[in-house]
Amino acid sequence: MPVPIDYAALVRPQVAKLKPYTPGTTVSQAKAKYGLEHFVKLSSNENPLGTSPRALAALQSLGELQIYVDDDHHELRERLAAPHGLQAANVLVGHGSNDVVRTLFTALLVPGDEVVVADPTFSLFPKDAMLFDATAVKVPLRDGVHDLDAMLAAVTPKTKLVVVVDPNNPTATAVDRGAFERFARALPERVVLMIDQAYREYMPAGSVEGAAYAASRPATIVLRTMSKIYGFASLRFGYALGDAALLAYVERVRVPFGVSRPAAVAALAALDDDDFLRRSVANNEAGKALLYPAFERLGLHAYTTAANFVALEVRGTATEAYETLLARGIVTRSGDALGMPGRLRITIGTPEENALLLDALRSLAPAAA
Amino acid sequence: MPVPIDYAALVRPQVAKLKPYTPGTTVSQAKAKYGLEHFVKLSSNENPLGTSPRALAALQSLGELQIYVDDDHHELRERLAAPHGLQAANVLVGHGSNDVVRTLFTALLVPGDEVVVADPTFSLFPKDAMLFDATAVKVPLRDGVHDLDAMLAAVTPKTKLVVVVDPNNPTATAVDRGAFERFARALPERVVLMIDQAYREYMPAGSVEGAAYAASRPATIVLRTMSKIYGFASLRFGYALGDAALLAYVERVRVPFGVSRPAAVAALAALDDDDFLRRSVANNEAGKALLYPAFERLGLHAYTTAANFVALEVRGTATEAYETLLARGIVTRSGDALGMPGRLRITIGTPEENALLLDALRSLAPAAA
Repeated sequence: MPVPIDYAALVRPQVAKLKPYTPGTTVSQAKAKYGLEHFVKLSSNENPLGTSPRALAALQSLGELQIYVDDDHHELRERLAAPHGLQAANVLVGHGSNDVVRTLFTALLVPGDEVVVADPTFSLFPKDAMLFDATAVKVPLRDGVHDLDAMLAAVTPKTKLVVVVDPNNPTATAVDRGAFERFARALPERVVLMIDQAYREYMPAGSVEGAAYAASRPATIVLRTMSKIYGFASLRFGYALGDAALLAYVERVRVPFGVSRPAAVAALAALDDDDFLRRSVANNEAGKALLYPAFERLGLHAYTTAANFVALEVRGTATEAYETLLARGIVTRSGDALGMPGRLRITIGTPEENALLLDALRSLAPAAA
Repeated sequence: MPVPIDYAALVRPQVAKLKPYTPGTTVSQAKAKYGLEHFVKLSSNENPLGTSPRALAALQSLGELQIYVDDDHHELRERLAAPHGLQAANVLVGHGSNDVVRTLFTALLVPGDEVVVADPTFSLFPKDAMLFDATAVKVPLRDGVHDLDAMLAAVTPKTKLVVVVDPNNPTATAVDRGAFERFARALPERVVLMIDQAYREYMPAGSVEGAAYAASRPATIVLRTMSKIYGFASLRFGYALGDAALLAYVERVRVPFGVSRPAAVAALAALDDDDFLRRSVANNEAGKALLYPAFERLGLHAYTTAANFVALEVRGTATEAYETLLARGIVTRSGDALGMPGRLRITIGTPEENALLLDALRSLAPAAA
């Protein structure tokens, strides 16, 4: 390159301020580092049972990949809407919910807007808010749970959007249904309420049903994904439910052909896979029934999970515990990187994976064992 | 919904101004309308030979779709960079080049920036510029070709970006290599030069090699895609080549997990598929050799194509000609919707498809036949 250019001045000021992404240890890096053959990956809340078999079967006959898809995805949107008494026009589709959030923020945020989020919560929300020159107003959790009263109190005339991640990531906690009902009713109508329910299918009975708010409260958007319980993490398909009149505007900024044919075909098939859903929930419930009493015996606190992962207290720093588990072949996420010091975020695995985790935790916390 | 909300006021002003997308006639709609069983789809510049067989074979063993991909895609980026003497750090990957453009514009554009584009050109560029409150400065083509002198003259202190689509869409024309060399040298260094070469593999010898500029001129970005010649239109994979220091900033705003595992796996395999590339180019050359003399006999002008499609003059309006061809089972794009009145954009097909097209054109333009 002949002359150095000041790229920091060339890009948008918000971009120059963003931190570069530092990826976590991949399984292959960990294998090289520790000389271990097998790793148990409990770091990204993937479904330990795999991908919906119906989705996998559908992928065997993909059709013509060289032909553009019908980007309307009408049938798929109808299928996603129907269980909630909604129509295709109430559904915005995308390449995973990260992509859907980016589309929504692109459509909604102007410089100076405020976005009220919990702290800690899924980092995409404050990061993408900042990208569009909005201010992320961070409201600390209370005992690991969204503090809805404090979030309501944080609303100002500049608030464009309030984000409730339910269950929250990284704490796995859900808000109380009655408290959420009061919160949603008290929120000024002009404020967009975004409810991220990436783990909705894992939630116990009596949990908040975001889709019901998408049907009843204007300016409400519910984010759902097939990455988690359906096992689509690297196939990518996410969607939003909301008011048709609002989504019609958002649709104008959606990147064309955001949903690949493999994702669309697999999604349609997976939505019929009740058996896989049932097995996945049952495996998760069995994991909770095994893990929580064991955590208690170890004297390690975990917030009550409404998802397929736990936010587990450890002795020493989270990063030390993370490294120790990694050396034993178990990949988790250190809470230090997630705004949750002193805890690990650990996916609930298969019975075998959970047993390996408990073995390793016992050696980590021998005093209390 | 209890109370109507003024969503036009809630979304960004640029979004309220955008026109809603009106999709073209799908093949299934056309089948229903005209009662025809078979349609020849020559409307979207897809590869008539299908998808790279190596890619299809690779898709038979996809691996674990429930596990997130390693979002770094290092090997794939290395493979894409190597033929141009570049490194992985010179490559930005995405879910099709539409997605890559959105990422680049998100990183680069601030309100008031000017983006110089040809007119007509691929509509995504002016549309996405407007989305980020930049001004698209449209410079008319000259005889269907980018008017590089006029584009250079349109550069002002506010110009952030100049986009050259080569070959251009919808005219299929390429710029002269020497003229482009002079243009690139004269362009102020602080101006980002974006060269969209979605159809690069189809270009004749002696064409502009955008990648060479990505390696030599700072602030230069070349867009490439596998949607076209590799047959990935509904699998989705696009990428940009450019200065590593610039792409490092852009990388910060890339939506995580933008490349699906199917796309990544298929892309790696397809890059080895020289045979499919050769056959695809040969089919396209045979189509040109058949079609251009026939167009001349029909007295219909087509710009010299450097791609896998033609911009063909028709009698009467483009939309009338489009409808007439559609009724005969041939789907094309009307130039009326592409800023190219009086012409159709038609993909070069298989020999059989091209023969059907010529039959239909003869009946369209009987006077000159």
